[in-house]
Amino acid sequence: MQTAQGTTRPLQVEVGVEMNTKVRDVLVRPVAEVDGYLHGFVSSLPIPDNLREAVQYALLGGGKRLRPVLAWYSAEAVGGTGQSSLPAGAAVELVHAFSLVHDDLPAMDDDDLRRGRPTLHRAFNEAMAILAGDAKLNFAFQVLVERVHDPLVASSLVRELAIGTGGMIAGQVYDTLGGMPETMAAEEKLKCIHNNKTGALIRASCRMGAMLGLMDTGRAQGDQRLVAVTAYADAIGLMFQIVDDILDVTQTTEQLGKKSGKDQDAGKMTYPGVLGLAAANKRVDDLLAEALAALEPLGAPAEPLRQLARYMAVRTK
Amino acid sequence: MQTAQGTTRPLQVEVGVEMNTKVRDVLVRPVAEVDGYLHGFVSSLPIPDNLREAVQYALLGGGKRLRPVLAWYSAEAVGGTGQSSLPAGAAVELVHAFSLVHDDLPAMDDDDLRRGRPTLHRAFNEAMAILAGDAKLNFAFQVLVERVHDPLVASSLVRELAIGTGGMIAGQVYDTLGGMPETMAAEEKLKCIHNNKTGALIRASCRMGAMLGLMDTGRAQGDQRLVAVTAYADAIGLMFQIVDDILDVTQTTEQLGKKSGKDQDAGKMTYPGVLGLAAANKRVDDLLAEALAALEPLGAPAEPLRQLARYMAVRTK
Repeated sequence: MQTAQGTTRPLQVEVGVEMNTKVRDVLVRPVAEVDGYLHGFVSSLPIPDNLREAVQYALLGGGKRLRPVLAWYSAEAVGGTGQSSLPAGAAVELVHAFSLVHDDLPAMDDDDLRRGRPTLHRAFNEAMAILAGDAKLNFAFQVLVERVHDPLVASSLVRELAIGTGGMIAGQVYDTLGGMPETMAAEEKLKCIHNNKTGALIRASCRMGAMLGLMDTGRAQGDQRLVAVTAYADAIGLMFQIVDDILDVTQTTEQLGKKSGKDQDAGKMTYPGVLGLAAANKRVDDLLAEALAALEPLGAPAEPLRQLARYMAVRTK
Repeated sequence: MQTAQGTTRPLQVEVGVEMNTKVRDVLVRPVAEVDGYLHGFVSSLPIPDNLREAVQYALLGGGKRLRPVLAWYSAEAVGGTGQSSLPAGAAVELVHAFSLVHDDLPAMDDDDLRRGRPTLHRAFNEAMAILAGDAKLNFAFQVLVERVHDPLVASSLVRELAIGTGGMIAGQVYDTLGGMPETMAAEEKLKCIHNNKTGALIRASCRMGAMLGLMDTGRAQGDQRLVAVTAYADAIGLMFQIVDDILDVTQTTEQLGKKSGKDQDAGKMTYPGVLGLAAANKRVDDLLAEALAALEPLGAPAEPLRQLARYMAVRTK
């Protein structure tokens, strides 16, 4: 599909080779741990069975777990263990899943399909989708304070998650309901939408993982390693959403496992729409380079984060 | 209206006299502080103006602020200042306001009127009501970690709020979507619904206020004063919802400022429906006595909490 658009993505070829070896392993390794941890936490909650089912339906529906995976390797990148990132990984995945459930509602994007399955409000009903989404956001904060035993780190993580989630909601408002100054240039508006809508939670994922990794090693939370991970997160966060925009116009519904072409149908501003597809692809490559440069001081432990960035630049769904 | 139902509420007469003097003052005194604090916090957030307007529309729309008022006097009851309870008061009011906005949505209760004004999704639109509700839940956690500087207390408050909010959502599910064991007796089901739907957040309001009050005085968070406040909260929480059920069948829409008779219309189980109105009124009186007994060890500083309990037993809207 992409070559049909007349653009070339040299990085895609180079990384495509690696995809079958290192990158797939990097992507997949933490997923079973994250899923088991999430399942264990949700099972432990004293909630009605129908609510638990709805929470787990949308949560354990086979997503990529990109945000927990980023948290995992951000913990490793600063010298900690991936294992220690699990409360953060569970929290950001709960927030991500809640946002998908609410975004899919009839009053929002009105989507019937998510990850190749009926959306939650189709599989259950709208009231349950609203309540299960609310519950997931709530449980995201709960898992942090119940599973992180250092209260200083726990409250820092809560703040980080709240800022990320607030940014995500703000971005969703900008994207679907407007509210940006009229005087802003189109590309500035796009950056403002994307930095919030997707960037803020990716930033939180990486920073929270790194904060738990630093706790692991006894290092201070203000360590330069956290600064490096934050710069990496900001670059891949914007890159991720630009790639999403590109996929929306270049892939089919079957390839994506969700409806394609919907940004265009909704008349939304997108990077390919504003810059053209070639310039949008170039922007992806620049942001990838920026992300890799940010990780330089972290050396070998940051290798999985590098792999992930390269994968995120060339993903096809 | 109530006498037309043929029930007598002796307490109502007794407390009716006081309403013009002490109770009104007790109810009103913290409200300006809470409103100012909430306004200041929401104004400080870096969010789109339209989202901020929607958040403030539902938040500053002249509610009773019962939960922040309970937090305020729970802090005083354990020997602290009401002022120190404000982060908790803001948090529980944000959660309460979020739950009203989502409950009013067309897919839930489908209400057009709230506190005598159009509901948020009527004044703005449904997408904004979903997102503003989400944002308020998120900001409830944010205000705790940003405004409470002792991280041990902050993370305890986050946990308390999450448990209260989870209970509230579970109660809403039980009430509107079922999920309770078929074998449960009707009154047991009602108690399960109410203890969660309204009780859990009232419990959190009182406990969080008390925890901040204890911090104020340097006392341990496990102090017996917290146990007393918790027992009080559990009694008034259930009582509050029974009164709500009674008002729904005895008051008009104009008196309530929201649609009356809707439980009956929706075929919901209610205390007057299951026990009869007289027995429901008796239950209110018993729970009031229980609440007052729980406060005994706290002496004079708990006097406003006693006034509040008496008011809650006889409120007419």
